[in-house]
Amino acid sequence: MTNLFGEFFGTFVLISFGCAVCANLTLKNSKGAGGGGAWLTVTAAWGFAVVLGASSAITTGAPQADLNPAITLAKSMIGVYEPGHAVMTMLVQIAGAFAGACVAWLAYLPHWGITEDKVAKLGVFSTVPAVRNTGANIICEIVATMFLIVLVFVLFSKELSNGGADFAAGFGPYLVGILVWSVGLSFGGPTGYAINPARDLGPRIAHAVLPIAGKGSSDWGYAWIPVAGPMIAGVLAVVISRAIGIV
Amino acid sequence: MTNLFGEFFGTFVLISFGCAVCANLTLKNSKGAGGGGAWLTVTAAWGFAVVLGASSAITTGAPQADLNPAITLAKSMIGVYEPGHAVMTMLVQIAGAFAGACVAWLAYLPHWGITEDKVAKLGVFSTVPAVRNTGANIICEIVATMFLIVLVFVLFSKELSNGGADFAAGFGPYLVGILVWSVGLSFGGPTGYAINPARDLGPRIAHAVLPIAGKGSSDWGYAWIPVAGPMIAGVLAVVISRAIGIV
Amino acid sequence: MTNLFGEFFGTFVLISFGCAVCANLTLKNSKGAGGGGAWLTVTAAWGFAVVLGASSAITTGAPQADLNPAITLAKSMIGVYEPGHAVMTMLVQIAGAFAGACVAWLAYLPHWGITEDKVAKLGVFSTVPAVRNTGANIICEIVATMFLIVLVFVLFSKELSNGGADFAAGFGPYLVGILVWSVGLSFGGPTGYAINPARDLGPRIAHAVLPIAGKGSSDWGYAWIPVAGPMIAGVLAVVISRAIGIV
Amino acid sequence: MTNLFGEFFGTFVLISFGCAVCANLTLKNSKGAGGGGAWLTVTAAWGFAVVLGASSAITTGAPQADLNPAITLAKSMIGVYEPGHAVMTMLVQIAGAFAGACVAWLAYLPHWGITEDKVAKLGVFSTVPAVRNTGANIICEIVATMFLIVLVFVLFSKELSNGGADFAAGFGPYLVGILVWSVGLSFGGPTGYAINPARDLGPRIAHAVLPIAGKGSSDWGYAWIPVAGPMIAGVLAVVISRAIGIV
Repeated sequence: MTNLFGEFFGTFVLISFGCAVCANLTLKNSKGAGGGGAWLTVTAAWGFAVVLGASSAITTGAPQADLNPAITLAKSMIGVYEPGHAVMTMLVQIAGAFAGACVAWLAYLPHWGITEDKVAKLGVFSTVPAVRNTGANIICEIVATMFLIVLVFVLFSKELSNGGADFAAGFGPYLVGILVWSVGLSFGGPTGYAINPARDLGPRIAHAVLPIAGKGSSDWGYAWIPVAGPMIAGVLAVVISRAIGIV
Repeated sequence: MTNLFGEFFGTFVLISFGCAVCANLTLKNSKGAGGGGAWLTVTAAWGFAVVLGASSAITTGAPQADLNPAITLAKSMIGVYEPGHAVMTMLVQIAGAFAGACVAWLAYLPHWGITEDKVAKLGVFSTVPAVRNTGANIICEIVATMFLIVLVFVLFSKELSNGGADFAAGFGPYLVGILVWSVGLSFGGPTGYAINPARDLGPRIAHAVLPIAGKGSSDWGYAWIPVAGPMIAGVLAVVISRAIGIV
Repeated sequence: MTNLFGEFFGTFVLISFGCAVCANLTLKNSKGAGGGGAWLTVTAAWGFAVVLGASSAITTGAPQADLNPAITLAKSMIGVYEPGHAVMTMLVQIAGAFAGACVAWLAYLPHWGITEDKVAKLGVFSTVPAVRNTGANIICEIVATMFLIVLVFVLFSKELSNGGADFAAGFGPYLVGILVWSVGLSFGGPTGYAINPARDLGPRIAHAVLPIAGKGSSDWGYAWIPVAGPMIAGVLAVVISRAIGIV
Repeated sequence: MTNLFGEFFGTFVLISFGCAVCANLTLKNSKGAGGGGAWLTVTAAWGFAVVLGASSAITTGAPQADLNPAITLAKSMIGVYEPGHAVMTMLVQIAGAFAGACVAWLAYLPHWGITEDKVAKLGVFSTVPAVRNTGANIICEIVATMFLIVLVFVLFSKELSNGGADFAAGFGPYLVGILVWSVGLSFGGPTGYAINPARDLGPRIAHAVLPIAGKGSSDWGYAWIPVAGPMIAGVLAVVISRAIGIV
């Protein structure tokens, strides 16, 4: 139970900060709007959101701090979780992401009505592909998420950090934040790097149910890609990590 | 007494650097003016200001290094301070912030007269909301400050850093700097993230009394929001932190 | 054999992330395109790519984590590698870089056809000089790579980190990432800082053989400079490091 | 003798990287030119230059790693150096800075002739005030340098890092780099933050003697301010640090 709360709370923190930075950079009149350097800014903020979300999960009972159903799937394949617990973990991650998106909406309350661009408003919640192309979009999500998961295994390997035990306090979450910042900088260009089914699905449900001023479609036709892509990547990441001996 | 000096000096350093970066980015002809990427730059500088301010407080006798009356209020609720000492601490934090704002004014002396925008000049000292809306503004300050305080408790929890004891020297202040950088990136858009009554009130008093060339109103009608919002958040952060078992 | 796989895999990760960030910032309609602050963004991403690549190499059997034939050459001169093993290491580094460039091409699949600028497309793979001048270009590559290699010896010296042994887990790769970020910021302006024959040659071969939509010349006339410059620098870096007593 | 070489070499590395990033951002056709976000970029690069310069000094025999005559003056006042050794240290720092500026000039060789702006070319070497005002300029240099020196004492205090001994390897130089990044972001706006007589004087001499294509005046009328300001700050920083008990 503690583990489930930790995953809920950590994902809540992650998505609160993540959706909020997207609001800051794209909603009208916000302090961060139109300031240039947007891609470095948004990826930095999502990286820091991971530092804070992972730290929150560790403190509140979830030392694995996955915050991501694709990572939970991968770890259940290598025996970290029982199947039933893995499914429960994924559900609370989605619930935490939904709750976080609601907080981001609340914090930017007066900015929704004055922002005209409906796609920008959806983009605060969910990913929107730069070029809509089913095959290419799912390939991009698979590639980016495989890197994410394999590199999490790398950072917490026995060779690098003695299974994480040698990290100075807080440095493990910090390095994972750098990893996610890096994935965003390099592989976020085509699809906006969901790389996490909860990160996309939870906020998309929030977009659908919240009374957002002047909102448009929640784009459910695209919603399966940022879920399926990362989950496929979770399986492939374990296959590869086993092949190269890092799990 | 040592603790009071440390809180004064740490807040002085924090606000000196914080107000100065706002001056750098907005006053006319300054090297940082109009260079693009302003939101990442200003939030980075405030984050680093926290690293330096917290380090300064620790070195000069205030190991708690709050630099923020809302954090001091929260800690007094969990027994870190006696009520009388908490009030004294808040007063020296405001005094330190006032002194820091004076230093930022001094360092940018020739730039005030050549800058025409009176609101920009106030914005070097105090926060100015992007959209003026009392309810939304105070909600935003409460949300942002609650995240700040709960996450300070997270970072210094026994699970993550053995109550801070496991931090490599200097890494604690560094992580708190990343936290404040992150709060600014994600939740700074609507109100400019005071998240600290001393950060807003001390410099606003300095704006009112300093002979700033061509200054306008100190906007006292808004001044209660960045004080009341964070203080309310201090109380709520303790309630939540107790409910989820992190204090 | 393990060492060779680690160098292959680490260089693969490095170049996947490195070429991908170039794609993100320059290909049409990508999320990072035209966002301003491009040089800070691209150099940050390459720095993080080094953190991830070096960590990957360490975890998969290559604790030296060179990822760069010029560094391998320098280390073979001071006895770290046998000559034959050094040559094999350089070849797998080039192969890893080739494979990484293919992944970056795949991730950005729909963006190649809609991008008209053929030089920008080559620039995703290989370096292109800002001003084409053989003497000046090779001097710049030599200077930048000498700093890189001498400073790697500095960071892992017995004085600073007890030969690397005193680094907290993961902090060594992080500091080398900052080093490469810094080299890019300061010395990347004239030639785009190959500073690594594998980083330039592997992706250039990929550019030549991949079916990139609307691609132009692979600019083989320039290709020897980012190979020869760094290799010359590898020799000179050892001479200097011996002269000043750091190897 | 070793200490003198370390201070020479560390300052050489610092100024090579520092002048080079200025060249990258301002010389025509360089990769970093006109990319937006310039102030964050230049201050980051100078911060990283400090990380690399300080690490270089430590490795090559100068564990104090001052790289700055104002810091050396302050430390000689608290008994770290004999007066004669302090003067020799300052001279080798200026010599190292001169040599570093020559390397930056060499690396950007083809870009000097095509850049028309003579003040921009001087700005690669030395600081140029945003608003020329003797009193305000020297006050700004004094304020910024006092913060630098007092905060160096803070970071290496017995309270924060057990006199530096508790720093993880390399984390001390990293934190000092963050400090200098922060000073630049916040206090660099009015004068370009020399905060170091060697950083300004050594490169200014290089500007005067190097055959820079199309160079203008070396602005010797301003040259005394970035020397006198930081040296005065060195004295004042010791007075203040003693008063508040941190040295």
